[in-house]
Amino acid sequence: MSATASATDRIFNFSAGPAVLPESVLEQAQKDLWNICDSGIGIMEHSHRGKVFDRVIEEAEADCRKIADISNDYAVLFLQGGASTQFGQIPMNFLSPERVADYPNTGEWTTKAINDAKKFGKVNVPFDGTAENFVRVPTDADLEGQLSSDAAYLHYCSNNTIFGTRYLTPPQTKAPLICDTSSEMFSRPIDINRHALIYAGAQKNLGPSGVTLVIIRRDFAETANPNLMAMMDYRNHIKNGSRYNTPPAFGIYFMGLVFKWILNQGGLESIERRNAAKAQLIYDAIDESEGFYIGHSQPWCRSHMNVTFRLSNPDLESEFLKEAAAQRMDGLKGHRSTGGIRASIYNAFPHAGCEALANLMRDFMARKG
Amino acid sequence: MSATASATDRIFNFSAGPAVLPESVLEQAQKDLWNICDSGIGIMEHSHRGKVFDRVIEEAEADCRKIADISNDYAVLFLQGGASTQFGQIPMNFLSPERVADYPNTGEWTTKAINDAKKFGKVNVPFDGTAENFVRVPTDADLEGQLSSDAAYLHYCSNNTIFGTRYLTPPQTKAPLICDTSSEMFSRPIDINRHALIYAGAQKNLGPSGVTLVIIRRDFAETANPNLMAMMDYRNHIKNGSRYNTPPAFGIYFMGLVFKWILNQGGLESIERRNAAKAQLIYDAIDESEGFYIGHSQPWCRSHMNVTFRLSNPDLESEFLKEAAAQRMDGLKGHRSTGGIRASIYNAFPHAGCEALANLMRDFMARKG
Repeated sequence: MSATASATDRIFNFSAGPAVLPESVLEQAQKDLWNICDSGIGIMEHSHRGKVFDRVIEEAEADCRKIADISNDYAVLFLQGGASTQFGQIPMNFLSPERVADYPNTGEWTTKAINDAKKFGKVNVPFDGTAENFVRVPTDADLEGQLSSDAAYLHYCSNNTIFGTRYLTPPQTKAPLICDTSSEMFSRPIDINRHALIYAGAQKNLGPSGVTLVIIRRDFAETANPNLMAMMDYRNHIKNGSRYNTPPAFGIYFMGLVFKWILNQGGLESIERRNAAKAQLIYDAIDESEGFYIGHSQPWCRSHMNVTFRLSNPDLESEFLKEAAAQRMDGLKGHRSTGGIRASIYNAFPHAGCEALANLMRDFMARKG
Repeated sequence: MSATASATDRIFNFSAGPAVLPESVLEQAQKDLWNICDSGIGIMEHSHRGKVFDRVIEEAEADCRKIADISNDYAVLFLQGGASTQFGQIPMNFLSPERVADYPNTGEWTTKAINDAKKFGKVNVPFDGTAENFVRVPTDADLEGQLSSDAAYLHYCSNNTIFGTRYLTPPQTKAPLICDTSSEMFSRPIDINRHALIYAGAQKNLGPSGVTLVIIRRDFAETANPNLMAMMDYRNHIKNGSRYNTPPAFGIYFMGLVFKWILNQGGLESIERRNAAKAQLIYDAIDESEGFYIGHSQPWCRSHMNVTFRLSNPDLESEFLKEAAAQRMDGLKGHRSTGGIRASIYNAFPHAGCEALANLMRDFMARKG
């Protein structure tokens, strides 16, 4: 049973996404699934135009605005289709055959975004990490002189889940800035006002898969192409407060609970400190290993959400994963593009899990090194 | 608490969607939210490429095929964006400026589908129910001679939630047949083989909002337009088994449990009998009232999912709704297009709830008639 279950029947879940969620939120959801707010109806069974859901979505938006100090110049939208839909929806709205957009390429997801953008207009790639297997993101010096003079926008991915890299600050550009921040949204402070559009699939830091948080500057949305199919037109969702059609109600509800959890944790600065400390535990184990463990990312742009490394002796990797599993650690196998190990340690991932992994790394090396 | 809660803390939920879900499925979901299959990880926290979710999605597809005897000529897809996304995605894939598609107009949803289709090609409306406020669907006689000779497809909506009408059989056409069956999917037997594409938002008969069931003939999908954005291209989802990107995992899981529930109810013929009996209870109360209650739909095409009627004295409607609420019946207010009363009684809606409504109708009339 849910409420009587102790944390001991749950394991350390390092999954890259869908990923671990706050346990207090899971417990609340268990109750509300059956009967929310004493309405006699579960959260998934309420009309999306009824009073209970009005309150759910209004609170979710208000708490989201509070977390990142989002002004009314921006609309906060809860959409469907994941970040992958944004890959196409953004150029469908803001690109055209005679215009160009800048897309620094920092991994698999930006590669996919570029492929979709090319279907709608011209794409300039001012930095391409492909040849060095995406071990870093560009610096502003890399981008200087490479950006288009009249770009419709610049699109970047602030944290690269697969490769474990992140931008320390948004790239410098005069173009409207668009950010895919799926794998690190609300894991550290974010300067909304530098962006025209920010989006994040929920399934890493914000909730279950199936809902996408989109924060878009209202005046930028007004510059979109005309005559788009209704569901791909941001203006339509802004006008209807994310309820043009039936929204992903349970996902919005759950995200709203996660927003409250973030605020209860002390907000983004507090969250960032905790995340940095968690990541440091594992990076220290890598750096102290004198090459037994090899980090994928260049140290200066290491992600605090996805710690990627391999063993200098790749034959030992499956043994390492087996020992981790025996110690109730799951989801550590790296993405097929990089191999090795990936520890995804999003907001809801516990400090104790990072300690457990760092301990295993040291212990394993002492025996096998 | 979930498992100890008796049905008595839940009320009769006549919501048009999101709508009532099977209680046994809700109870299962409460448990799996915390820890599914003794994995130590909740259903929403599992990787969509891991073993647990492999089994979830494979079983969901297999059970779906079993329910409606769906052959391998068809792909079964679990997508996002609701039926409203299909309104645009279908013509984006299968229409073009030089081609025409047939769209009989039977209500608000087909009107929206028509508006999106016009952005991609020519639309022929062989029947338009607007002038008579959508009190019926077309007969084959209505459509005869009105269909395009070389239509890319014919799109229809098999059950009209707002107006409470339904097609008894699919329209006769030589064109590929596309059906929006959102509000009655798996409420009665459906002849998949007559269709090229069938779609349904889950939030009426199949699960929570945020997942769309799409059944598409593979050879029809191959005729789609080239160079579409990845997430709008059915071929892409077919090739990747609905996992091109992170799918709406919890919705698919929940839909899978509902499929098992449908099979446990004896399948579609058994479900249809129960639904017919439930609807009859309310239609009888309308028909016996000698005009005190006035049904919206013409009797021959009455929906078994959405029973729509008004009171001959509209001043009494708010009183009727108040009495219903006092008897723990919610969600009966009609859509703003029709006014009056709408009782949505999907698969999971209990027989006892239809009895309760019919009893109230007779009692109310005895006192006010």
